[in-house]
Amino acid sequence: MAIIVQKYGGTSIGTVDKISLVADKIIVEKNNGNDVVVVVSAMSGETDKLHNLAKIINPEVKGRELDVLISTGEQVTISLLALTLVEKGYDAISLTGSQAGIITNNVFNKARIESINNSVIKNYLNSGKIVVVAGFQGVTEHGDITTLGRGGSDTSAVAISVALDAKECQIFTDVDGVYTTDPRISPGAKKIDHITSEEMLELSSQGSKVLQPRAVEFAGKYDVGIRVLSTFEDGTGTLISKDNKQVMEKAIISGIAFNKDEAQLTIRGVPDQPGIASLILGPIAERNIDVDMIVQNVGEDGLANFTFTVPRNDYKEAKKSLLESAKNFSAKKVIGNDKIVKISMVGVGMRTHAGIASKMFSVLAENNINISMISTSEIKISIVTDENNLDTAVNVLHKAFDLDK
Amino acid sequence: MAIIVQKYGGTSIGTVDKISLVADKIIVEKNNGNDVVVVVSAMSGETDKLHNLAKIINPEVKGRELDVLISTGEQVTISLLALTLVEKGYDAISLTGSQAGIITNNVFNKARIESINNSVIKNYLNSGKIVVVAGFQGVTEHGDITTLGRGGSDTSAVAISVALDAKECQIFTDVDGVYTTDPRISPGAKKIDHITSEEMLELSSQGSKVLQPRAVEFAGKYDVGIRVLSTFEDGTGTLISKDNKQVMEKAIISGIAFNKDEAQLTIRGVPDQPGIASLILGPIAERNIDVDMIVQNVGEDGLANFTFTVPRNDYKEAKKSLLESAKNFSAKKVIGNDKIVKISMVGVGMRTHAGIASKMFSVLAENNINISMISTSEIKISIVTDENNLDTAVNVLHKAFDLDK
Repeated sequence: MAIIVQKYGGTSIGTVDKISLVADKIIVEKNNGNDVVVVVSAMSGETDKLHNLAKIINPEVKGRELDVLISTGEQVTISLLALTLVEKGYDAISLTGSQAGIITNNVFNKARIESINNSVIKNYLNSGKIVVVAGFQGVTEHGDITTLGRGGSDTSAVAISVALDAKECQIFTDVDGVYTTDPRISPGAKKIDHITSEEMLELSSQGSKVLQPRAVEFAGKYDVGIRVLSTFEDGTGTLISKDNKQVMEKAIISGIAFNKDEAQLTIRGVPDQPGIASLILGPIAERNIDVDMIVQNVGEDGLANFTFTVPRNDYKEAKKSLLESAKNFSAKKVIGNDKIVKISMVGVGMRTHAGIASKMFSVLAENNINISMISTSEIKISIVTDENNLDTAVNVLHKAFDLDK
Repeated sequence: MAIIVQKYGGTSIGTVDKISLVADKIIVEKNNGNDVVVVVSAMSGETDKLHNLAKIINPEVKGRELDVLISTGEQVTISLLALTLVEKGYDAISLTGSQAGIITNNVFNKARIESINNSVIKNYLNSGKIVVVAGFQGVTEHGDITTLGRGGSDTSAVAISVALDAKECQIFTDVDGVYTTDPRISPGAKKIDHITSEEMLELSSQGSKVLQPRAVEFAGKYDVGIRVLSTFEDGTGTLISKDNKQVMEKAIISGIAFNKDEAQLTIRGVPDQPGIASLILGPIAERNIDVDMIVQNVGEDGLANFTFTVPRNDYKEAKKSLLESAKNFSAKKVIGNDKIVKISMVGVGMRTHAGIASKMFSVLAENNINISMISTSEIKISIVTDENNLDTAVNVLHKAFDLDK
């Protein structure tokens, strides 16, 4: 019997009525003869509501107790969904992250899954039950409750799929698949049928909100197929798998992503010597702030300028840290900007086609869009620009690279 | 260093502001040089809100998943209280029932505590922390979340006091102590300074809402002193301890309790033979319905009438069960009434004073109050009457036994 893992996000289960619709979808898969494990988020808005309660006590709240609080959101939905399945005549059981044996490290609020004891879920599946697991949460080996950070339910679903050797990990959301770019910005955006996890990783980490990058990374690493589907419409969605010839042969560029949730920090006039990057980024990493783009180039007098981007939420803390460490190597100046957007073009076809970058830059230049940062990888080109340029930039690129055709 | 256990109910921690006031009370005790363990309920109304959500799915909802849902209420308050204590500069940690090692049996929704692994709490106390524990909940030895039923947080607090050999278990509530009867019914009701756990047990199980009877029973059994205090006013409250000479010498009757949360069931014309009581009550007990008063007397033709009371919520189910089992011993009739009230007079002094019962019955008769059931114990006399008689009966008894003096 094949195991199917389904994940439903907060908008899919925001009310008891919606939970009933979700239960029907689960039952279809169960009646197809599959073992079904369902991973759910908290009801939409609930995590923010709990977070705001804690912010009354401390506006900068974080750490262990926040996870104890926030994790109740999914605990409510697992029980309501399990009750609904039982009410519809199907045997079901709910499990918190802790009960499901999802062991994480002890970085509260942003924990990472270290292992899953799959025997708990497997035993319940073997006894014929539909197993409903709380996403986004786990437990340390010492029994402290942890959460995986925003979007972590996708990661939970993929990790469980890997641990159970599931046939497919279906991520149900409020869109019917992955698009060439955000349809709200470019009306010509098209749904993609197949995409490689490598491309999806670049797309999602660059700001496509459909799937959490850590989930895609996990799936790619362990070769689990993820299918992104709509909770509210029928359709085959978008399949994300390790390899996909169709995509490779069809298009040079598979999509354009953007991310407004970043801020840029520059430290000017640092000595251009080995180890300087780790001196700058070390203190940032110690604060558990993710660094995304990193650019270093030489300025005047053998001194280098060092620029990087961080999540916009962490901007203040990162700037503070940078100002402190700047003293240690007598840097000239620290400057920052949190009104930026990163725009990325992604495609495995890029590997074998020259000139993509220069075409991108000339299209942007023709439209008077100034670039403040550039970073490239084998299958991606990212630029940073003022956030006011977002709509124009995405639309002119989408058209110039024939993504609307 | 002495250990003080404090318990705060839902009305004491209904908002973040109230939680801050509670934190100040805890800090006073900590600054007195004590180790402090705090047991909290869910915010007032929260348990009902969660329960109502589940009732949309199934109006008769019960069992495992309900406990997964309901237990999130206390998980929210423990984290908010721990965050508040930390914000005020005190080291604190929250523990769910499961994390605190509160092991229960597997009777979901009405579980009983079987043991507490006190090493978890003790280790945190030894490291100087204030430990905040979720009341009302525990975990089975298989890791399933359970709840203890309404009012179970009192039981949690007393059980933790016993497990830690605490100096005192302070139950903070919205009243400033235990009264001779409900002041809303009798304006002449007086606060009691000391009361024995035996008396308190009769008072609370008979309907005084201040303390859960199971908690009092537990405390009496293990000789832990409970002090009932107001969260919102200063005062010494009411001390409930195993023995109390002052009370024994002072009053014959310490208080009058009543309980409107009961229903009465009668099975008529059952054979008056050994074992009949267990045949009638066995199926009721199997459904985990508590039976309170039991009266059996012989009717015509050697056939007996058997009457008992159950919680009003369980009335329908108990009646159904009784109708089924009535067939097995060809009983004549099953009748029931859920519009009753039980009124009880309690006092250890009763043991040594004759005539209390007859005085009670004559006072009620003078006021035209009809009695449908009588039950007596060494320190208690209970009667059942129509619920419309409640106010009159309590007031005339309170006056007749000089409780207002």
